[in-house]
Amino acid sequence: MTLVLGIDPGSRITGYGVVRDIGRGCEYVASGCIRTGSGALDERLKAVFRGVSEVIAQYGPVTMGIEQVFMARNADSALKLGQARGAAIVAAAEAGLEFGEYTATQVKQALVGTGAASKEQVQMMVMQLLRLTSKPQIDASDALAIALCHAHHRQGLIPHGLLGARRRSGRLRL
Amino acid sequence: MTLVLGIDPGSRITGYGVVRDIGRGCEYVASGCIRTGSGALDERLKAVFRGVSEVIAQYGPVTMGIEQVFMARNADSALKLGQARGAAIVAAAEAGLEFGEYTATQVKQALVGTGAASKEQVQMMVMQLLRLTSKPQIDASDALAIALCHAHHRQGLIPHGLLGARRRSGRLRL
Repeated sequence: MTLVLGIDPGSRITGYGVVRDIGRGCEYVASGCIRTGSGALDERLKAVFRGVSEVIAQYGPVTMGIEQVFMARNADSALKLGQARGAAIVAAAEAGLEFGEYTATQVKQALVGTGAASKEQVQMMVMQLLRLTSKPQIDASDALAIALCHAHHRQGLIPHGLLGARRRSGRLRL
Repeated sequence: MTLVLGIDPGSRITGYGVVRDIGRGCEYVASGCIRTGSGALDERLKAVFRGVSEVIAQYGPVTMGIEQVFMARNADSALKLGQARGAAIVAAAEAGLEFGEYTATQVKQALVGTGAASKEQVQMMVMQLLRLTSKPQIDASDALAIALCHAHHRQGLIPHGLLGARRRSGRLRL
């Protein structure tokens, strides 16, 4: 019964998703978006830090998964993404959460079973695994996908994991 | 008599410098390096956040200057630099500091009088302006240069600024 946080950071919108890992799968707890507005850089990063801190304070997750970025479009967007990531990761680290990073391929593999899955397939699997009746906003959905992937990798020792036979990827060092 | 913090963030070493703006110039207060070690990403970013927070708590600066980055070497290093910047900026924003960003050219222009100045010329001017008898470590020196540039731009309304007649660059919006 571990609460797992997934974060999809961005310079304008940071998605978050919280799931409850009940061993034989995960249940939906909460998801949403932290909008950083159009203010000065320090105000926007403070919004990410405080937003993530508030989600942690409200739901009490003990571990956080975040997407690992390999191929940012360019140096400028990588810097902006890095700043938002830094603010989000610091919020989790200050709150004492465990931490795991996953590539987009690992997230797709954990949820759909193949690293070549489309964004839509991932979103469909998020809805199916969490029994959601309406489609979450895309940043929130991506954050839930990361939370599910993180839960999946954390529970490597439990016989019936998140996806049962669909599990293929190796366990990550956490 | 304003205390001004300058930060030169990096993924491994974050330099800091604190100067006292006394209207007709600046005095040296402190400088040093926050080393982030070789641990996991969240631990390293927490070290930056806590290190900057401690410097702020110890010396009580009310405003922070940081170098604005335009040309990171590549997307990967930009992401890493962005993460460290995010952690440092959040520490200052959480402590309620004012915030200013300056390009390398602006720092050089404020200190040496020309945007084409070399790193060595900037370091020499830092030593001269702050009457230092020994050369600070390069990251600390860069942070002191940013603090001096930030002090210079903040005191635009004071008749005899940091560099007197050498001042050429325009005032920044803070």
